[in-house]
Amino acid sequence: MKKLINHVDTVLAESLDGFAAAHADIVTLGAERQFVRRRHLKPGKVALISGGGSGHEPLHAGFVGHGMLDAACPGQVFNSPTPDQMLAAAQAVDGGAGVLFIVKNYAGDMMNFQLAAEMLDLENATVLVNDDVAVENSTYTTGRRGVAGTLIVERIVGAAAERGDKLAALKALGDAVNQATASMGVALTSCTVPAAGTPTFQIGDDEMEVGVGIHGEPGRKRVKLATADEIAADLLGAILKDLALKPGQPVILLVNGFGGTPLMELYVMVCAATKILTAAGLTVVRHLTGSYVTSLEMAGCSITVSAVNADWLALWDAPLHTAALRWGV
Amino acid sequence: MKKLINHVDTVLAESLDGFAAAHADIVTLGAERQFVRRRHLKPGKVALISGGGSGHEPLHAGFVGHGMLDAACPGQVFNSPTPDQMLAAAQAVDGGAGVLFIVKNYAGDMMNFQLAAEMLDLENATVLVNDDVAVENSTYTTGRRGVAGTLIVERIVGAAAERGDKLAALKALGDAVNQATASMGVALTSCTVPAAGTPTFQIGDDEMEVGVGIHGEPGRKRVKLATADEIAADLLGAILKDLALKPGQPVILLVNGFGGTPLMELYVMVCAATKILTAAGLTVVRHLTGSYVTSLEMAGCSITVSAVNADWLALWDAPLHTAALRWGV
Repeated sequence: MKKLINHVDTVLAESLDGFAAAHADIVTLGAERQFVRRRHLKPGKVALISGGGSGHEPLHAGFVGHGMLDAACPGQVFNSPTPDQMLAAAQAVDGGAGVLFIVKNYAGDMMNFQLAAEMLDLENATVLVNDDVAVENSTYTTGRRGVAGTLIVERIVGAAAERGDKLAALKALGDAVNQATASMGVALTSCTVPAAGTPTFQIGDDEMEVGVGIHGEPGRKRVKLATADEIAADLLGAILKDLALKPGQPVILLVNGFGGTPLMELYVMVCAATKILTAAGLTVVRHLTGSYVTSLEMAGCSITVSAVNADWLALWDAPLHTAALRWGV
Repeated sequence: MKKLINHVDTVLAESLDGFAAAHADIVTLGAERQFVRRRHLKPGKVALISGGGSGHEPLHAGFVGHGMLDAACPGQVFNSPTPDQMLAAAQAVDGGAGVLFIVKNYAGDMMNFQLAAEMLDLENATVLVNDDVAVENSTYTTGRRGVAGTLIVERIVGAAAERGDKLAALKALGDAVNQATASMGVALTSCTVPAAGTPTFQIGDDEMEVGVGIHGEPGRKRVKLATADEIAADLLGAILKDLALKPGQPVILLVNGFGGTPLMELYVMVCAATKILTAAGLTVVRHLTGSYVTSLEMAGCSITVSAVNADWLALWDAPLHTAALRWGV
């Protein structure tokens, strides 16, 4: 295992310390590194909290800040955070207008956020993200997995919270954006979890895993490596079948790297995906390209398509100031 | 070779097309993809042009936009752009106040930018970046190599050009920022150039290349993999010896991934580097962390330290709107 670390037991703590040092203008670390929170809270605003296993950086801590999340709870690599982390985060950032959890659909995350919600007496205050169209049920889920579409949900709901939308409206908005968002990914190589020390899965030099999960979980099929155009057609075929959009529909296109993929290749995928979406009669109104929802150093990418209306697009464009995404400020 | 591509001969063209599609609000492609230029030029402003081999994305095209470059000329992967590219770019973006080239110190880049300068009758209009303290002379250079510090030179000079500084002042500023900037990197794995199809160099499962160049060129030594703290101490030892800064000096710290390194590890390096710089009496006034000057999918990172005065820091902070870096707008 080749990693820039000191020890597998200290990776998360040192990474969080480095993150907090690098972005001290935006975030601050909670006691015992239980959560990362916005340095400057906005009183009277609904507090948005997310979290999950680490190893997907910049998700979620990189999305804490003005116009997105109020706090993120990092678990160990590919392990859920514990309910006391969400409890501590909620107590730190609740400005009196309520707390909304945004949770990717994994059994561990669901259970622990649910326990935290019960401890906080929160009702109907969780947006569940399950945008991965690759598989129904999986290694760690009942139902579909939550993957890169989480970024889009967190951003649009975050902007709505920033403008003052109330809890019930935000919950409904998050559910609606999740419904309008679909993703699917492909892996060329495995990642190696530091504590494991060996690759999560074996894959041949000429193979790829289509529909892979962000922890290296199996997808739909293990096949020979295809071209960028073929991969984009495969992923978008599944995505567009799921979304069933009408011609002319405005969409956001997110081409997301899994951590070990050069930006040059991601833009080749953008080229391929844009041609397919245009040919399908859709209008790509916004692009986001980069490694945002990662699987450590896994090579590969996912494509996310999110159908937006004028209000959602205005929320997407609203001022945003986080470590990983910034515009308008 | 596992890459998200269609064909090795079309990687660059399709990547540029994807880039231009994704960032159509900021950039436009020149004819025959000779250059990427700002969509909205500013009349009367000195035009800044950079370029070099591709495979280092987002450098340089990702830095084209308000507050940074006016144009970037992409060569084939790890190959210099040709003089006609710089000529075409200069003709497209020269707003009447002159043209300044910012060039990384590689023999091919130097020669081709020099030829373009002669064709354009430009004199004393090139800032040469040679921030890599790893080695004097190298595979592709006489003298030191230009690496991630190029980003800092392009940013600070770009902001000064945006505020209206004249050509001679910008040339002097660029030279001064380059002098105040030092970098060194370490590679854990090799990259694979698409047209070559095999790794650029062989390295053992327990080895790292200290002082590696951004094309995988040899550095100072091939040694056993060390801890993040040891690597940071090694790199910063060389950097700080070169810069010979006084205690209290404000610095920008850039921890740069080479393309295949998870963000989590880069923040571990930030944690390590920040401790060392603070212990050395320096003040880290700004952080930049991410994969900005890459070597395709090479795993590893570089550290850059740039000493700044109040004026340079204000320029660093000034509004910036490029594909890869954005703040204040």
